[in-house]
Amino acid sequence: MNPHLSASDIPTGFTFAATHCGIKRSRLDLGIIVSDVPATAAAVFTTNQIVAAPVVASRKHLGKARKHMRGIIVNSGNANCCTKEDGYPASVAMASKLAAELGNTDSSQVLVCSTGVIGAPLRVEKILAAVPHVALARSAEPGAFEEFARSIMTTDTRPKWATARCRIGGRQVRLLACAKGSGMIQPNMATMLAFIVTDAAVSSSVLDRALRAAVEPTFNSITVDGDTSTNDTVAILANGKSGRLEITESAGANYKAFSKGLHRVCKSLALAIVEDGEGAERVIEIEVCGAPSENAARQVARTIANSPLVKTAFAGADPNWGRILAAAGRSGVKLDPARANISIAGVPVCRSGREHPFDERTVHQEMLAKHVPVRVDLGSGKASWRVWTCDFTVEYVHVNSSYRT
Amino acid sequence: MNPHLSASDIPTGFTFAATHCGIKRSRLDLGIIVSDVPATAAAVFTTNQIVAAPVVASRKHLGKARKHMRGIIVNSGNANCCTKEDGYPASVAMASKLAAELGNTDSSQVLVCSTGVIGAPLRVEKILAAVPHVALARSAEPGAFEEFARSIMTTDTRPKWATARCRIGGRQVRLLACAKGSGMIQPNMATMLAFIVTDAAVSSSVLDRALRAAVEPTFNSITVDGDTSTNDTVAILANGKSGRLEITESAGANYKAFSKGLHRVCKSLALAIVEDGEGAERVIEIEVCGAPSENAARQVARTIANSPLVKTAFAGADPNWGRILAAAGRSGVKLDPARANISIAGVPVCRSGREHPFDERTVHQEMLAKHVPVRVDLGSGKASWRVWTCDFTVEYVHVNSSYRT
Repeated sequence: MNPHLSASDIPTGFTFAATHCGIKRSRLDLGIIVSDVPATAAAVFTTNQIVAAPVVASRKHLGKARKHMRGIIVNSGNANCCTKEDGYPASVAMASKLAAELGNTDSSQVLVCSTGVIGAPLRVEKILAAVPHVALARSAEPGAFEEFARSIMTTDTRPKWATARCRIGGRQVRLLACAKGSGMIQPNMATMLAFIVTDAAVSSSVLDRALRAAVEPTFNSITVDGDTSTNDTVAILANGKSGRLEITESAGANYKAFSKGLHRVCKSLALAIVEDGEGAERVIEIEVCGAPSENAARQVARTIANSPLVKTAFAGADPNWGRILAAAGRSGVKLDPARANISIAGVPVCRSGREHPFDERTVHQEMLAKHVPVRVDLGSGKASWRVWTCDFTVEYVHVNSSYRT
Repeated sequence: MNPHLSASDIPTGFTFAATHCGIKRSRLDLGIIVSDVPATAAAVFTTNQIVAAPVVASRKHLGKARKHMRGIIVNSGNANCCTKEDGYPASVAMASKLAAELGNTDSSQVLVCSTGVIGAPLRVEKILAAVPHVALARSAEPGAFEEFARSIMTTDTRPKWATARCRIGGRQVRLLACAKGSGMIQPNMATMLAFIVTDAAVSSSVLDRALRAAVEPTFNSITVDGDTSTNDTVAILANGKSGRLEITESAGANYKAFSKGLHRVCKSLALAIVEDGEGAERVIEIEVCGAPSENAARQVARTIANSPLVKTAFAGADPNWGRILAAAGRSGVKLDPARANISIAGVPVCRSGREHPFDERTVHQEMLAKHVPVRVDLGSGKASWRVWTCDFTVEYVHVNSSYRT
């Protein structure tokens, strides 16, 4: 699943480390990413109004130091959310401690993330005690990055990383990224986190624009259960170590090349998250086309992707196009069912809002694949949007209904 | 569950019948309700844009004959939806046939409903052939009404009916109602249907207002899986046989008394539908209070009620207030988590957005009950709303993922 990493995949000037500090019972639970030199930074955060302390801290740090960020510190096992008056100081302390270890660095130059249980106090002293060791241990080896990718996992069954390269002004630029999350899942576990580092030189405002453009059709277009977490964060650091040419405009060949690479790693990680969705057996790609606007297409696609009836039908590999059409019908977007065509796994199953004769056994077989494309043509425009979701299985309920212990 | 019915519960001037006409393999699948005299009528229909043929026909008939409706004909086993050019004539033929049997009656004086598989052609000839027999068999006996209530079932595990009485101008008025539905469930099965008959005399415009007012906090405030069906219909007939006093204003003691009775039967049936929700083990009553407006309270309550994470937590009797708060946070309603209090089964579990110490084992035990109240106080207003949902169990997935056969 994950590409094999070699030393040449690691963007110049970044180091990584991870350790077990004691928040979790025995697995890696603390990781850091450090840039040798101040990097430009951008991040997007959860839109949930219940916001964890580290998100509040990181937003503030980004506001101060978006042009000279030095690193990211992440703990798993505890989300530091709904921990009110103790939460924010704990997040700031994590950033300060790493900044102190790096030397010559303000706490605002460090982003901080947490993921795990909500509502339980964070034993931050365990983290702070481990920071000197982990700061010392950091390395540019692929193995160090892989350990970082493991340290941010909660209910993930596997680490997830992706790489991309692009040419900017004749120089090769590298992107390296990892993510955790399989929906907002597991009793009180939460959060999708993704971190991207690149040795491209990109101005902070362009980096922000490129990140937002990349996140919308990727991380923002996947859904496991429709629940958004209190800690969701996607952050990128660009340290410019690949060369001197800085991308300062969100147009032109260099911006396009960089954006393409950024989109590629984001899409790869977003799909990996859906594939690792709690109990998921398959990924369903829902493409809504023929829509009057991109917003309309997105709204229809999201409603279909979050319908428990659609998702359970896919668990049974049941070509139940009636549920897909009914979900579209309640999406709030005005549509004419008589113009709707639907195909599942490439087979037309509904034409002009009515059943199109198809061999159920064949389609059922096709739907047993790991990746099932669904195309819904609304027949009333030219806009389209894609959303990826997973099937809704008995295993999902098992995991999410288990009593916390 | 259902109240025992005696002859005195049946509103004067209504008769009922049901039969097996051959749409289903062996169970009752065709039912009629007839008023001896023309009745005023009102109905609310699905808001889904994918609308079944019988809904189109009933809307039209209601438009023409809301002041002199004679009856309702319902088949189960086939929803007559997405059956385009054949669908509408089939629905009209059902109404026409019953009208012809009643004599002196226009087809517009009959409402028509269908529920069952979507997308399969309706073998209407079987229904039409059975209408003369069923029209002849109708009776005012409680048993006939109970058979009607059974004939509209699809995946329901039991019939659902309710009664109420009220005094209008010194005369006793009766309401009798039944419903089917357990969410939009089962491969291609759909639909919530409810029928109410009363011997009160109510003008059609007041009847419409009273019905809409009763449906909003009852049928419109339950959810099994967030999916709305293409055939949902709630219809009421008021034939005035209890006496001459007609309610012509939507105010005053008579209107209030009638509305109260109507609300009671609607609420009773709405709860019965949630209790019978696919795979449901318990009903969760979500009361959102302290909201800035009723709309805001309703939106928060609905988001919580449809969250798969909340619903699976309740399947495990897990007092996971973090998921409830997180669902509120993404509802789109502006709220301050620091003001939010949550109690589950009467036990405060969250105060000011943080965990309030509670005995998990006790709350877990309380949550194993058939009915679990949840109260979410947003602390920012005086408005409130209640929504009823059911837990999301492994059985739900089993039923909805099974391949159609």
